[in-house]
Amino acid sequence: MKVVTKPLFRKIVVFGVGLIGGSFALALRRVNAVEEVVGFGRSERTLAQAQQLGIINRSGSDFATELGDADLILLATPVGQMADIMARIAPHLGAHTIIIDGGSTKCDVVGHAYKHLAAHIARFIPAHPIAGSEQSGALAARADLYQNKKVILTPLPENSADTVSRVRLAWELCGALVSELTPKQHDEVFAAVSHMPHLLSFALVHDLALRENRDLLLSFAASGFRDFTRIAASSPEMWRDICLANRDALLIEMGRYMKELETLHNALAEADGDKMEEIFSIASALRINWSPQ
Amino acid sequence: MKVVTKPLFRKIVVFGVGLIGGSFALALRRVNAVEEVVGFGRSERTLAQAQQLGIINRSGSDFATELGDADLILLATPVGQMADIMARIAPHLGAHTIIIDGGSTKCDVVGHAYKHLAAHIARFIPAHPIAGSEQSGALAARADLYQNKKVILTPLPENSADTVSRVRLAWELCGALVSELTPKQHDEVFAAVSHMPHLLSFALVHDLALRENRDLLLSFAASGFRDFTRIAASSPEMWRDICLANRDALLIEMGRYMKELETLHNALAEADGDKMEEIFSIASALRINWSPQ
Repeated sequence: MKVVTKPLFRKIVVFGVGLIGGSFALALRRVNAVEEVVGFGRSERTLAQAQQLGIINRSGSDFATELGDADLILLATPVGQMADIMARIAPHLGAHTIIIDGGSTKCDVVGHAYKHLAAHIARFIPAHPIAGSEQSGALAARADLYQNKKVILTPLPENSADTVSRVRLAWELCGALVSELTPKQHDEVFAAVSHMPHLLSFALVHDLALRENRDLLLSFAASGFRDFTRIAASSPEMWRDICLANRDALLIEMGRYMKELETLHNALAEADGDKMEEIFSIASALRINWSPQ
Repeated sequence: MKVVTKPLFRKIVVFGVGLIGGSFALALRRVNAVEEVVGFGRSERTLAQAQQLGIINRSGSDFATELGDADLILLATPVGQMADIMARIAPHLGAHTIIIDGGSTKCDVVGHAYKHLAAHIARFIPAHPIAGSEQSGALAARADLYQNKKVILTPLPENSADTVSRVRLAWELCGALVSELTPKQHDEVFAAVSHMPHLLSFALVHDLALRENRDLLLSFAASGFRDFTRIAASSPEMWRDICLANRDALLIEMGRYMKELETLHNALAEADGDKMEEIFSIASALRINWSPQ
């Protein structure tokens, strides 16, 4: 674990003190990388809980007094709320305040930043911590959430190397393995390996949920179903936002997948066992040799 | 754990000494419910391994000498091989030999049995132990595989209550929770909650496997992808057979699912966030409240 001799940040402001934002705060506080964490959020109850849990020192009063002297602001709300928050915080940002986000999509967040944080764009460093969970909320936050997890920065041409380094260090102090992609690369990659599985899992469970015999069906579902559908318990609001935010890449992936299913459907309809075995074999060989890094 | 005072069976013959057949033998041997277990299989090496692992007492020599005095025969091969094995063993079955299977589909196995085990159909009790795994082979066999797992019997009108009870007891001695469905009910249920997830998982991984940038994509795949695709590591041959064997029910499920995806695709194309959130919410609410029984 990296340690710091003096705090990297005097004051951090976190918007959204749930799994992503709360864990970031807990991780930095654990290594004394920050002196004060101030939280903003939609729910007073969550903010009070976050304070009780040691995630934040206190909840924020108003933007005018809280943001000017902040060293770092983390936007850890669902991506659907980010444009609005950016627009509202922009007038109050200090000259040296760094802004980061934890959104699961990047092109849209970057687009909002260019629009709403224009004067501060040099100090906006987009990031996506790959530490999602079907759990959410302040209670789910853990100081070790980012330990050995990937965090992807998608720096902008306007960012200085120095600011990027400082943000990279902050994530590394959380225990994360930091890498870089462009926002577009990021969104294409995650449409394929994250957003599609979520969407497919939601779709299967939704289709079962509407059936009259769903209780019978579910009573015989076993470990394969359990693991395949774990992510269908994820936050509907968050995933609505992610899908809308990454619409272009996701529509391309959905089109590919629907063709893939059509191929399988036709092979099955024609009882073409060779074709099915070929598809299953290629998948199985790849999956057996893969494990999360 | 149920125990028996005297062995339930003197001699059991197991076709296919892998995960399903091997675990059945180990479980019954552990509670002394059987005196002798004889194994048949396609690979001499696997049979030797099964003997070393204490799964079988010995491998079988030929059908003519081994089957006539067997109390129970378990067919635990991929379902694609069962018709052939039934045809070959039928001439050698003893008058009291009970035959059971462990196939993941039932209508097709029952069809084969009516055709090939006609004279013995009263003593063929179809079963599906819900204890699959992406692992297979004798090394994967475990005496406790069936502990608290569901086993579904799909008895035939020709079966006597007495024979069904005896087979039920055998599975209960393995630690299983036994229930009953008709073969058709069984196949419809498992098309929905087991075969579809496998097929969808294979399809996603296959689609990624064929891409030039698959290594980049996979390097960012995380726990959601890991769990969603765990079952894509399953045996291609076994799943080809299951899909073909349960073709009718599975084609209906695939049709439903493709419509479901089309609905989601259209909602996304139209940026209809309300529709997407509705679908995700229904799925999420169901999945949060469900756990495997």
